[in-house]
Amino acid sequence: MAEVIDIHTHIVPEKFPPYRGKGKDVPWPSMTDAHACHKHVMISGKLYRTVSDGSWSVPRRIEQMSEMRVTRQVLSPMPELLSYWLPLADAKVMIRYLNEQLAEMCEAAPERFVGLGCVPLQDTDSTLRELEFLKKDLNFPGVEIASHVNGVSIGDPRFEPFFAAAEQLGAAIFVHALRPAGQERIVGAFPEQAVCFPGDVALACASMITGGIASRHPKLRIAFSHGGGTMSILMPRLVHAWNNFPKAKESLPESPATIARRFYYDELVFEPRAIRFLVDTFGETQIVVGTDYPFALGDWTPLKTLEKSGLAERVIAEITSTNARRFLGLPEGSR
Amino acid sequence: MAEVIDIHTHIVPEKFPPYRGKGKDVPWPSMTDAHACHKHVMISGKLYRTVSDGSWSVPRRIEQMSEMRVTRQVLSPMPELLSYWLPLADAKVMIRYLNEQLAEMCEAAPERFVGLGCVPLQDTDSTLRELEFLKKDLNFPGVEIASHVNGVSIGDPRFEPFFAAAEQLGAAIFVHALRPAGQERIVGAFPEQAVCFPGDVALACASMITGGIASRHPKLRIAFSHGGGTMSILMPRLVHAWNNFPKAKESLPESPATIARRFYYDELVFEPRAIRFLVDTFGETQIVVGTDYPFALGDWTPLKTLEKSGLAERVIAEITSTNARRFLGLPEGSR
Repeated sequence: MAEVIDIHTHIVPEKFPPYRGKGKDVPWPSMTDAHACHKHVMISGKLYRTVSDGSWSVPRRIEQMSEMRVTRQVLSPMPELLSYWLPLADAKVMIRYLNEQLAEMCEAAPERFVGLGCVPLQDTDSTLRELEFLKKDLNFPGVEIASHVNGVSIGDPRFEPFFAAAEQLGAAIFVHALRPAGQERIVGAFPEQAVCFPGDVALACASMITGGIASRHPKLRIAFSHGGGTMSILMPRLVHAWNNFPKAKESLPESPATIARRFYYDELVFEPRAIRFLVDTFGETQIVVGTDYPFALGDWTPLKTLEKSGLAERVIAEITSTNARRFLGLPEGSR
Repeated sequence: MAEVIDIHTHIVPEKFPPYRGKGKDVPWPSMTDAHACHKHVMISGKLYRTVSDGSWSVPRRIEQMSEMRVTRQVLSPMPELLSYWLPLADAKVMIRYLNEQLAEMCEAAPERFVGLGCVPLQDTDSTLRELEFLKKDLNFPGVEIASHVNGVSIGDPRFEPFFAAAEQLGAAIFVHALRPAGQERIVGAFPEQAVCFPGDVALACASMITGGIASRHPKLRIAFSHGGGTMSILMPRLVHAWNNFPKAKESLPESPATIARRFYYDELVFEPRAIRFLVDTFGETQIVVGTDYPFALGDWTPLKTLEKSGLAERVIAEITSTNARRFLGLPEGSR
């Protein structure tokens, strides 16, 4: 069976340790039973989301991967667990717990899983230590981060030491939407993940370009979720602004398009036409498979979606395997 | 010369009446001299933007239209003048002044200009009265509105009486970004118009769909600026959510794609590939020319951009003329 690497899948542990910190009203998650094969993620006494057993069960994941024709999943935490808003001491406990849970799942089926860990981005020193632990002790290919840290875009200069360290360590970075900008503008019954995640990812992606971090660290391997969100259609406007606003041009030594074409993007945009647009915009070497497994807004038939796109078999093979290996830093042909 | 209607151009009056209201620290605009052929728009004692004489001068506009190969401009106020945040009495004065300025410019060259007026959307009754005045007294084809009114998306139920009246009166509505969501997430020297306007327009467009107003008023003629912002790449995700979230599906009798394909979008996305993506996504009958004249981030060679897109001549003729006439409600062949 041809290799299909899905770089965008999430985990939620089956249970969380009880809160042992010193804070008051800290939004520490816990799990309670739901209907068969499901649990409720409770945060601050409220239901955050009901998740299925694929979130934590290795056999269940492998069963569903077969149905999805995915041979390897890249595991990352459900973004709401990233804990940037917790007191640092609490965040470090949660983040270490998540990273160990990820490591256990990967060890249970090392040919099927690799892990992207997490770091407490609200504190640089702790982040750098956790990143080293992930790369050197757990041998993870990299980390998942959110689009922003408590409202500050990841392209802000305060996060540059993290990106510099990731570049130097060869850590792959997967950027995912979280608590998105514009959610107060939603009207009606559609969820924020549907309406606002794509714009949120694009803001993060744009900030990495316009703030200069991506230019100063050209060897960073960074992938954006949800097809880069709305970045594909935003990019020509950034290029036009760069060409027409002297201040923008002076601030950036290369075109936003040149930079954007060094990033990776999953193909989670659901329509063949949209996938082709991503490939044409960012280049066939930069697109990877991402399904958002096991969540409801995911694409549970990624191969079918790709096959409908009319892309050449060679390009599909790049998207399903080669590009993901290059992004993750997995040697060709290795398991 | 073939007709080319540009539905996205702005005006700024050469001067504003002095503030005569009763408010304190009301952000009432005024104009001061800048370098040759330019003026500064001052708001609350600060420079908001420096604008060129094309903003108010009919001969200057006509001269530049020739250079741009545009035969007719649809004039609308610079969005920061829409005054939704002013005390109502002050907003009504400003809005009436803008509408009269628009009318004067149109009367000076009725074959070259049509006007989209403005309404004080912070108050429904005043809005309905101004809309009647625009349609019946000034004979305008419609209005320009912003993507949101003081942070509330235009798809919010409170604005439904306005849309119902516009549908009933046959008023065309042009939706433009303003004070965009996510602007606090910008890093570096790129302006908010570049980074955040597209997402802002998409939030407005999505709200008209997800809140149900567009479904309940299917005869509305509504156009979105900047190519609908990021709506083209967001739409498949809204469709996927509609198909997979029972609450979303129950809330909306038709697919978001069906609704989105009744809207109009200007082609202000700068790249041939992006224009083709708009045409493929929304349909060749729904795309119109928009340049953002006379502002710096505009497309001053709209025909060249369209010609590079590789679209058939027949489709280009629809985009440059037929579709805009249908959107505006101008009879075929009329001047």
